[in-house]
Amino acid sequence: MIRLSSYVQDQWVEGTGEHSVLVNPSTEEALAETSTAGIDMAAAITHARDVGGPALRAMTFAQRGELLKQMANALHEHREELLDIAERNNGGTRGDAKFDVDGATGTLASYARLGEKLGDQTLLVDGKVTRLSRARFVAHHVRMPRPGVAVHINAFNFPAWGTFEKVAVAILAGMPVVSKPATATAWLAWRMSQIIIEAGILPAGAYTFICGSAGDMLDHLGAHDTLAFTGSADTGGFLRSKDAFTKGSAPVNIEADSLNAAVFGPKADPGSDLWYLAVRNIVKDMTQKTGQKCTAVRRIIVPEAWADALCEAISEDLSRVVVGNTADKDVTMGPVATAAQLTDVREGIDRLAEQTTIVCGGSAPITGQSAPDGKGFYVAPTLLRAESADAAPDVHKHEVFGPCATVIPYSGDADEAARIVAMGGGSLVSATYTDDRKWLGQFLVGAAPWNGRVLACTAKVADESLPPGMVLPNCLHGGPGRAGGGEELGGLRGLEFYTQRVAIQGDSGVLGKVLGIPAE
Amino acid sequence: MIRLSSYVQDQWVEGTGEHSVLVNPSTEEALAETSTAGIDMAAAITHARDVGGPALRAMTFAQRGELLKQMANALHEHREELLDIAERNNGGTRGDAKFDVDGATGTLASYARLGEKLGDQTLLVDGKVTRLSRARFVAHHVRMPRPGVAVHINAFNFPAWGTFEKVAVAILAGMPVVSKPATATAWLAWRMSQIIIEAGILPAGAYTFICGSAGDMLDHLGAHDTLAFTGSADTGGFLRSKDAFTKGSAPVNIEADSLNAAVFGPKADPGSDLWYLAVRNIVKDMTQKTGQKCTAVRRIIVPEAWADALCEAISEDLSRVVVGNTADKDVTMGPVATAAQLTDVREGIDRLAEQTTIVCGGSAPITGQSAPDGKGFYVAPTLLRAESADAAPDVHKHEVFGPCATVIPYSGDADEAARIVAMGGGSLVSATYTDDRKWLGQFLVGAAPWNGRVLACTAKVADESLPPGMVLPNCLHGGPGRAGGGEELGGLRGLEFYTQRVAIQGDSGVLGKVLGIPAE
Repeated sequence: MIRLSSYVQDQWVEGTGEHSVLVNPSTEEALAETSTAGIDMAAAITHARDVGGPALRAMTFAQRGELLKQMANALHEHREELLDIAERNNGGTRGDAKFDVDGATGTLASYARLGEKLGDQTLLVDGKVTRLSRARFVAHHVRMPRPGVAVHINAFNFPAWGTFEKVAVAILAGMPVVSKPATATAWLAWRMSQIIIEAGILPAGAYTFICGSAGDMLDHLGAHDTLAFTGSADTGGFLRSKDAFTKGSAPVNIEADSLNAAVFGPKADPGSDLWYLAVRNIVKDMTQKTGQKCTAVRRIIVPEAWADALCEAISEDLSRVVVGNTADKDVTMGPVATAAQLTDVREGIDRLAEQTTIVCGGSAPITGQSAPDGKGFYVAPTLLRAESADAAPDVHKHEVFGPCATVIPYSGDADEAARIVAMGGGSLVSATYTDDRKWLGQFLVGAAPWNGRVLACTAKVADESLPPGMVLPNCLHGGPGRAGGGEELGGLRGLEFYTQRVAIQGDSGVLGKVLGIPAE
Repeated sequence: MIRLSSYVQDQWVEGTGEHSVLVNPSTEEALAETSTAGIDMAAAITHARDVGGPALRAMTFAQRGELLKQMANALHEHREELLDIAERNNGGTRGDAKFDVDGATGTLASYARLGEKLGDQTLLVDGKVTRLSRARFVAHHVRMPRPGVAVHINAFNFPAWGTFEKVAVAILAGMPVVSKPATATAWLAWRMSQIIIEAGILPAGAYTFICGSAGDMLDHLGAHDTLAFTGSADTGGFLRSKDAFTKGSAPVNIEADSLNAAVFGPKADPGSDLWYLAVRNIVKDMTQKTGQKCTAVRRIIVPEAWADALCEAISEDLSRVVVGNTADKDVTMGPVATAAQLTDVREGIDRLAEQTTIVCGGSAPITGQSAPDGKGFYVAPTLLRAESADAAPDVHKHEVFGPCATVIPYSGDADEAARIVAMGGGSLVSATYTDDRKWLGQFLVGAAPWNGRVLACTAKVADESLPPGMVLPNCLHGGPGRAGGGEELGGLRGLEFYTQRVAIQGDSGVLGKVLGIPAE
């Protein structure tokens, strides 16, 4: 069993006391152990803030982008090893492992290119100059790196991508990172951290890795220290109640539960290209990473007349899914990540089933193919069907974080579809399938503000559109309300969280030169 | 004594039970009374959200801008009456009253012009289109009005400007407003609300006015309801701890305490134009509105060698200030706004005086000119002097919200100046006076991120620069850390808080038309 460690004050340190054990969710075999007990979190934060911060702020965007490029390259050189770890510790298939690991290197590379494009700047100009007098007195709005530390607390489902998409944005913005993975799947993030540290890419203090419990870390945050959290709404709410974020004004970004929707509008009839695209996307969302994606579809909103056909199409595809030990190459869907997740998912299915009917799957225990007897955290891909949106209130309130979604028949009216999307109280993404532009426009007016992203699939882009579950570095990721109210990625937009916007008033000639702002 | 009322569900209603009494701070004469007891806050919020929201969202920016223009005009027609109320209830001079009332109409007019400029749009385009495939698949980032209600809780010092700068931005963004003034100075905001309601400008549900305690209002906020608060850091922290903002993700914007700084750099020698500009600005900040401005200077950071001359120059100007009843036209500075403020300011001066020396003024009771015997909340303009930044830690921690500031000698080094500014833990604004560009650049790198706004006074703009205490609609207002971490105003930037940013992915041809986004 491998013993994981934390990287604190530019040194690898092991925690003391009782260690948490990381297992293979396919077999329950113990793989690794970790502890952060005894680590001085205050010293870790101070070191990152005082040593890493100045070093990164002294660099240009191009230089910081170069760091990201080197990180992407170093990680890519170890791709096979990383995929192996992902497959063993995270319960995913080879495809799931690639989605996570390649997502990490891809996001690093994308932000590296953005850094190159920003070039020799050290601050971001925010909009055009504002004239405040008829002569020389003006205001420039700029964004400058926050002189603090960027704390990242990540979820168990994307140990690679979740860690490094946040790292990419914070480092490019000019902030040192303190990254904490979810303990259960921390092996991958630990190994990736080891690779970038061993490669000697980052300046001292720029990267801290806390492999396990965060302890009292959040009690040591100051005004310009930030927290970006991905995980459950409950934990998010608990973290956001901490003094640093309430009495203090330290910025916090939360990406939490989300009852994402897929919505069929007119002209997406059964058998059409859009219909098949929708079914493909839905099945992919339900089964990829065993449904443990924050962007996975949970609610499938379909005109009443097509509901039978849709249930049939989805459950037919789900019936071909092979659930089991991801070491078996015939397996197409692995277990959920932990024993606790398995319990949560089963209980969640039962809860939703009280207000819906089970089309396929269910909460009953299943045996994974090629799994040791009685071992592994397996659950059947499960499709539920509500009578209507209002007949199943829990479907809009409770996220089952596994291979489970609910079909919700509706009238076909655009406003009604938007109302049902909004019942989720805020989502990361909704996808809509229609070739009716009037319907689409009306739907977007009502539904779009309840999402951080909307994928509008129309016939002409059916072949080239990406699935809704895919988070892209150049598109906003986050959503209002239940989804946490955060904003990550989206190219330059992601940097906003890590920078302070300031209006600087003064002499147009002087300020332009002093701040290095090009004349317009 | 006039009885104030609240405007709820499009009707004026009086509260029940015991009423709070509003007084003239110059004389302690009772002027008005108000109560919100018995008002159904849940119904008030729901009505605004369900009736006002759809009406405003159905309008274009130009149409919403027209509402603001009409509001500015209606208020301007009653200017003399409003100045009288301000003078009587707020404790300010005629000049202070104009600063508040004209600030309100000016900000409404400024945002009205922005609306006109935005024209027939109903959403804001956020950046250029993002290409996601080699063909038609793209993402547009847009901002759409949040489908909720904008709650505003305002401070006692700017009942006119505070109320209507927030109203201007929220209404232009497309959100209905629920506005609550501080009770002690609510008369002015109430009368202004009455004027705009009587003028019949706004659609039903777009404006709600809660004249007194907010009761349980914040317990009824949903995912897209927002809170913008101006007031003390303590109250801000308390509000931000509410479930709506922690467990829920309702957006909250806080503008709170701020230990704003004025910093002398090289080439602002005693007797120079910059020197006199600095002294004028400092004395204005200390005495305008009796120092009760969130942007007023609290810390005056000056090279050691000039400290004596500066103390002399400021205290000489302060000695000419006539403190008293604002009904007396010879009076140049009124009382603070309430008895509680008077106690706070006196205690605050005593607290700072433990670590500093008193140059002029102090916490001892004074008699206001033309005030009734022993009446009125008067305090002397007070200048303190610290030995050094580190010798007076409370100067960087405790805001005395009155006519009081502290001179802090320092080495003259730019990094040291920035360090002292940062000791305040985040400010709304700092002003710097220097004609040394190298020094200015170095200072800005360290100090700017600790402010929401920096005024860089150099010789050539000495005649045209505006004072640092002046908040402009087209410059960001807010600041990190102790200042609350918020962002208000700044032209379009102010609308960000009231809008949801969404990435909309789809067919470039379809989305442009459906969303009304002009082709690039």
